[in-house]
Amino acid sequence: MHVTKPKIRLFVNEPFRAGALLALGSGQSHYLSHVMRCRAGDAVAVFNGSDGQWRAEVQDMGKKSVTLLLRDQMEKQKSSPDIWLAFAPIKNKTELVVEKATELGASALLTVFTRHAVVRSVNMDKLQAHAIEAAEQCERHDVPRIEQYKDLGALLSAWPQGRILLYADESGAGEDLKTMLPQLPKSSYAILIGPEGGFAAEEQHILRQAAFVRPFCMGPRILRADTAAVAALACVQAWLGDWQEKPHFEAAG
Amino acid sequence: MHVTKPKIRLFVNEPFRAGALLALGSGQSHYLSHVMRCRAGDAVAVFNGSDGQWRAEVQDMGKKSVTLLLRDQMEKQKSSPDIWLAFAPIKNKTELVVEKATELGASALLTVFTRHAVVRSVNMDKLQAHAIEAAEQCERHDVPRIEQYKDLGALLSAWPQGRILLYADESGAGEDLKTMLPQLPKSSYAILIGPEGGFAAEEQHILRQAAFVRPFCMGPRILRADTAAVAALACVQAWLGDWQEKPHFEAAG
Repeated sequence: MHVTKPKIRLFVNEPFRAGALLALGSGQSHYLSHVMRCRAGDAVAVFNGSDGQWRAEVQDMGKKSVTLLLRDQMEKQKSSPDIWLAFAPIKNKTELVVEKATELGASALLTVFTRHAVVRSVNMDKLQAHAIEAAEQCERHDVPRIEQYKDLGALLSAWPQGRILLYADESGAGEDLKTMLPQLPKSSYAILIGPEGGFAAEEQHILRQAAFVRPFCMGPRILRADTAAVAALACVQAWLGDWQEKPHFEAAG
Repeated sequence: MHVTKPKIRLFVNEPFRAGALLALGSGQSHYLSHVMRCRAGDAVAVFNGSDGQWRAEVQDMGKKSVTLLLRDQMEKQKSSPDIWLAFAPIKNKTELVVEKATELGASALLTVFTRHAVVRSVNMDKLQAHAIEAAEQCERHDVPRIEQYKDLGALLSAWPQGRILLYADESGAGEDLKTMLPQLPKSSYAILIGPEGGFAAEEQHILRQAAFVRPFCMGPRILRADTAAVAALACVQAWLGDWQEKPHFEAAG
């Protein structure tokens, strides 16, 4: 029997077991009933960040809530590589960075308010919702964790031992990626991208002092902060992440 | 004498020589007079794609047109690496790809209408204007050339001898970038990114038949077309382009 893969894919933050019922929240219920116009019996793929990807079936199209019946596991859990992205929120583009970094497989997104940052607050719930939506669309089995740090000092003082912070140093002082990436030791990694206005002099100073920080540069042109985040994450994923693996979905013909 | 670098930077498609006058078009004139509120004597940096970067001075704030007086060359011409990006225009995001690819240093942008593409026409003047604006902001000395191809056959049949086309094959059939990039021969290169819906089966077939095409893959997740363009261009620039050079501007402190 050929079973086609469900077209709809949802993140549901509940434990999974065959035969269990999942009562969806109002957003996902609305999406299934009014946007996708699902009916009872329709297939939906679901993931919860730890149990892989499961096949579920619309059980009940309630007026306020849709219930799914969990059938069976389609794919074993495949977690994203342990690569973090730390970045200063960018005016009108923070959501874009969250979306792109999720697609590119970052496991955690750390927002940091730097001295020259224009944006002074972010809506964490909204960012998490963007990350979930991007994860649903890119076939990830997990959703990046999102954290907020009030300034660079707070980020660096809470820095976990053994994780190397690759710092996009726009002064050009760091190594280029072609030289740096093949020489990096086996470790866990994070990337740090500054705000539109760049890091302040004292921030650059603390970054250069920290033993776990490794500065790098991305060539002669000025990159916008969102471009820099995507570009750096792509190079680091290609070298240190999981880009040597093949897609686990069926590509459209 | 310490001469600060002008904050305003404009592309002016005219030959440069010291003492010459440049009559700006209505868009740039409006920008200088009404957006930047310049006055006679203000410094402006200008580039034309071949003569490097020059210092100019506002000579006359005419009602309809601003005239600049060319002073002297500040930086010698530095052309972007000979790396092209060919891509299917993407709904609401074609301008974004043009902007990002310009920042990332692509020397030519080739739009190709593929079988599954949603977008069926592009405004070439508007795309060129976006490329100019991005070039002005990222300190490039040149603006990428933009070309349009009616379909993949037209692109491939006009393909220049000796240029390798790196094709982002979403089926996962290609090499991964970490394996491929260090092994590529000295050559000129282009990257090909498909549309949202992927390439059609017959398009995949012609791509696999062409001797100058080299497929690659970018890991297990589905990337949106615009993310894929930025990610691939970043990796290729880091390896084959000019990312080993330092910024030629003074970074903000």
